[in-house]
Amino acid sequence: MSAPDPYLAAALAEAQRGYDEGGIPIGAVLVHEGRIVARGHNRRVQQGSAIRHGEMDALEALGRRPGSFYRGVTLYTTLSPCAMCSGAILLYGIPRVVIGEHRSFLGEEALLQARGVAVEVRDDAACRTLMARFIARHPDLWHEDIGDV
Amino acid sequence: MSAPDPYLAAALAEAQRGYDEGGIPIGAVLVHEGRIVARGHNRRVQQGSAIRHGEMDALEALGRRPGSFYRGVTLYTTLSPCAMCSGAILLYGIPRVVIGEHRSFLGEEALLQARGVAVEVRDDAACRTLMARFIARHPDLWHEDIGDV
Repeated sequence: MSAPDPYLAAALAEAQRGYDEGGIPIGAVLVHEGRIVARGHNRRVQQGSAIRHGEMDALEALGRRPGSFYRGVTLYTTLSPCAMCSGAILLYGIPRVVIGEHRSFLGEEALLQARGVAVEVRDDAACRTLMARFIARHPDLWHEDIGDV
Repeated sequence: MSAPDPYLAAALAEAQRGYDEGGIPIGAVLVHEGRIVARGHNRRVQQGSAIRHGEMDALEALGRRPGSFYRGVTLYTTLSPCAMCSGAILLYGIPRVVIGEHRSFLGEEALLQARGVAVEVRDDAACRTLMARFIARHPDLWHEDIGDV
């Protein structure tokens, strides 16, 4: 078994933090030149937010940066990014996205790849387990978060 | 000349409010069953935000809603929606988007249409004028907002 990726582990720690807060357990970190520059997790429940998905929360934590900064960023997220988060990745020209898993939810990976973003899916068991546990317990919250009717 | 659209006028009022605050003048409103249910404007400058575009700000102002609610929403925005905002429209299944203008910036209209969203561009002179004035005065802020290097 390979050593755990410290960046994906940090994204998972954010997801776990969200879970412990009673929220939707999806976490993300932004890595720039080997360093974690921002962390975030979904805050739909905690802040009553429709836009604070884990990836968006990390982008907001990073704050205002010039476009050139994002070109050196890798986004790590525990779950395949939805259309909104994928759109944010495209807006800012983030060139690489590492995804914990996409079995619970398959986001806009094909769109990202079609636009030249490098996408890696790790199929991480810990990411899958946390998400599956949450969806089984709170299907209503989960469907709300992905805009399902 | 046709009567001004009250919803687009409300979006433009939001854009003007942002301009008056020293921000990027892009505004949006969400209309549900003929009623404006949320208003928003770009808050990059005002809140140091990377995710509070006008459309996102309106979605956040609306708050948590079931997916079924968004199916009856029309989004009015003064400017063609970027990849992030278009992604949010797709995530929540908003079926119709009315755009003040797309000469200053052409967003992801083709993607929205390809996914079945009805897109109307009004080519509104007041929306164009406000945006052109801002871009001429603050090209740096504008390029930052759309992720340009």
